[in-house]
Amino acid sequence: MVNAFDVSTTDALDPAIQAIVRRRARVLGPGYKLFYKTPLELVRGEGVYMYDAQGNRYLDAYNNVPSAGHCHPHVVKAVSDQMAKLNTHTRYAAEPILDYSERLLATFPAEMDNVMFTCTGSEAVDLALRISRFYTQGTGVIVTANAYHGLTTAAAEISPQLGANVPVGQHVWTVAAPQPDRTDGVDPGEAFAAGVAEAIADMQRHGVGFAAFIADSLFSTDGILPDPAGFLQPTVNVVHAAGGLYIADEVQPGFARTGDTMWGFQRHGIVPDIAVMGKPMGNGMPIAGVVVKSAILDEFGTKVRYFNTFGGNSVSIAAAAAVLDVIENEGLQENSQKIGRYLKEELEQLASGSDNVSAVRGAGLYLAVDFVDEAGLPAADAASDVINGLRQRGVLIGGTGMYGNTLKIRPLLPFTHAHANEFLHAFDDTLAAMGRNRPASVAARGR
Amino acid sequence: MVNAFDVSTTDALDPAIQAIVRRRARVLGPGYKLFYKTPLELVRGEGVYMYDAQGNRYLDAYNNVPSAGHCHPHVVKAVSDQMAKLNTHTRYAAEPILDYSERLLATFPAEMDNVMFTCTGSEAVDLALRISRFYTQGTGVIVTANAYHGLTTAAAEISPQLGANVPVGQHVWTVAAPQPDRTDGVDPGEAFAAGVAEAIADMQRHGVGFAAFIADSLFSTDGILPDPAGFLQPTVNVVHAAGGLYIADEVQPGFARTGDTMWGFQRHGIVPDIAVMGKPMGNGMPIAGVVVKSAILDEFGTKVRYFNTFGGNSVSIAAAAAVLDVIENEGLQENSQKIGRYLKEELEQLASGSDNVSAVRGAGLYLAVDFVDEAGLPAADAASDVINGLRQRGVLIGGTGMYGNTLKIRPLLPFTHAHANEFLHAFDDTLAAMGRNRPASVAARGR
Repeated sequence: MVNAFDVSTTDALDPAIQAIVRRRARVLGPGYKLFYKTPLELVRGEGVYMYDAQGNRYLDAYNNVPSAGHCHPHVVKAVSDQMAKLNTHTRYAAEPILDYSERLLATFPAEMDNVMFTCTGSEAVDLALRISRFYTQGTGVIVTANAYHGLTTAAAEISPQLGANVPVGQHVWTVAAPQPDRTDGVDPGEAFAAGVAEAIADMQRHGVGFAAFIADSLFSTDGILPDPAGFLQPTVNVVHAAGGLYIADEVQPGFARTGDTMWGFQRHGIVPDIAVMGKPMGNGMPIAGVVVKSAILDEFGTKVRYFNTFGGNSVSIAAAAAVLDVIENEGLQENSQKIGRYLKEELEQLASGSDNVSAVRGAGLYLAVDFVDEAGLPAADAASDVINGLRQRGVLIGGTGMYGNTLKIRPLLPFTHAHANEFLHAFDDTLAAMGRNRPASVAARGR
Repeated sequence: MVNAFDVSTTDALDPAIQAIVRRRARVLGPGYKLFYKTPLELVRGEGVYMYDAQGNRYLDAYNNVPSAGHCHPHVVKAVSDQMAKLNTHTRYAAEPILDYSERLLATFPAEMDNVMFTCTGSEAVDLALRISRFYTQGTGVIVTANAYHGLTTAAAEISPQLGANVPVGQHVWTVAAPQPDRTDGVDPGEAFAAGVAEAIADMQRHGVGFAAFIADSLFSTDGILPDPAGFLQPTVNVVHAAGGLYIADEVQPGFARTGDTMWGFQRHGIVPDIAVMGKPMGNGMPIAGVVVKSAILDEFGTKVRYFNTFGGNSVSIAAAAAVLDVIENEGLQENSQKIGRYLKEELEQLASGSDNVSAVRGAGLYLAVDFVDEAGLPAADAASDVINGLRQRGVLIGGTGMYGNTLKIRPLLPFTHAHANEFLHAFDDTLAAMGRNRPASVAARGR
């Protein structure tokens, strides 16, 4: 796991954190990993900042659940009010869930006209698989080589990123991630679609019926691959020609993260059959969902009993509606586009002066910076040094990619220019301390 | 589905509810079912009551999520306070999750010493299956004939209650539910264990390695079968002798529901390898979990990356800790035992005077009443008439069982004698209106 704390270094930690690490091992077991070479104990959040137990402040350029801002007062009030009024399930009639559903569906193409609620993105992915397999009567699923789609048995089977100890399912085929910067003259969209077509043919040759292709619309775990916008249309065509469904995993790109559009797939101008969403949907409240064409859902919905006890409960819906309010009222999509563009331009300028940065990519407030060594090979150690160096300077980011050499920069959506500059300065300082090249333009910038 | 609203009768509903039913069909699709012949629109909850849009009051003898009482002020305050302070995930260090985990584990046998958090009971069941299959390297699972364990792909495969449109998995064997009232002199625990042993042998004969036996410790969907306490020990012995794991599904019986003990398996004096819990854990906040022997979890935890974004987040833990406070401070387990015994005795008295009630069962505040026709055959229509008759009289219960002829009575845990009498009077009135036999003892009782 990228940016994981190494438990073999526990003895070197301060006593307070050391005690927590040991208690975690004792009661939560070894499955619970911490971030950073020196784990953080956070006790408070407000806006784009979090605070540790000693009162130190951290600029949050990582967490994509509290996208509207930590402890956003509008969301806190909506949840607190609803908690005190009623929290029940969908087998009683209620209007708020319908009001919210209609608002949510209005952000989708017209033919994506039904929504079902779950509690987590994993449950949403799992439900999308169930719907797809029921509808197509196939079982085969195609994913990218380093995809991650969740933690249920079925979602983990389509998540090769989990590594050798979690086998990819026997009915799951993988394709290489898109190569947006290929230089051989081949259109990257056509090349990616050709890989999907080959996988479908191979799957069918093995007697496995094709159910669905699923991809994160930003390819977050494959290294964050947003461009060129539009490159997914040929894949949609290939999938539909083979009778399969296209599932857009919007758990990470959705809810205005990419700046250009509300949903990541919209940047590509495509219409998926199913979209799954989660993380920022309730700004921390466990709510997620599946938006699907009614033509595809109808028979499943009629014949299969599916009841999610907490899914779409009164409080989760109140949280989700408040999040939509904030996105609209505070112009978070436009802000993501504006601040994301600024950050990308500045990072590109920095990259042009550094031998260690091989690429900068991004859409809105979801940015990637690749690090390489002197031979041009992926440098996971350099990426790790930047992540931990920023943490020491009070800025939180993460890492990703097949080789772990890609910085994952996901500022909260209300980031201002001042927050962006705070990030850039810390970034610049970190590179300087590592002895990397510093472009003058960044080093000389004032706050 | 027992107690489902029949959408073909939509035209007969009042305009307000009719509009909601039509909107639901349009945006949520046909998968979303409502309860009752006339669905309820509920807008407020307080203690053991809920209120509809017209201000009518309903005594809640059904919902097992808000077990501590609707909108319990201690839980509402804990959630509201934590929402305003911080809501983040388990990859940062924090003490509250450890404080809660230690309290929770203290209610379990000593060897069940690790806990992992999920958001739903389904995710917990799914994780228990992943752990079991990893540990045993088998895939085969044994469940009872009308079991329900959840909605993920893997959980639905072990849920025959979902019916013919959701096939039981190929690696899943079913056994007949326990028959506690068999009269042939055979010990019901030995008889049930013999069925499990046969299933294991048949599974192995088919080349499928045995991973786990899983059962709701109250057999809720098999008709609610609590007695005789202790009958599960022979099954644990058979499962362990075959190298499999025993998973106790405590989503329904857990958290003091059965009155006698905190966990349903404790009534039977057994020690499972894994227990899964959910529904009432956060009194409506989506939190669930798996408690497991560290000896079983260790290798899975070390080798398999499992991160549940919302699982064990700051707010969910605050809710769960508040629920434990309420259970302890208000003596809800003792209350469940006391009021449950009173209700059972009164219902048994009623049954003895009725040809239509063939059995009354229960443990704590989880009670079952079976209805039969004049030939002694299961009478789902009579059960449905009681459920809907009670709803008209302002009391909420549900139905269950293989034949849908069993009333599912699950009062909120703070039920008092007065609430129990309110329930019994409405029950008596309902039977009277149906023209069933009324025992004088109930009819004559004052409030």
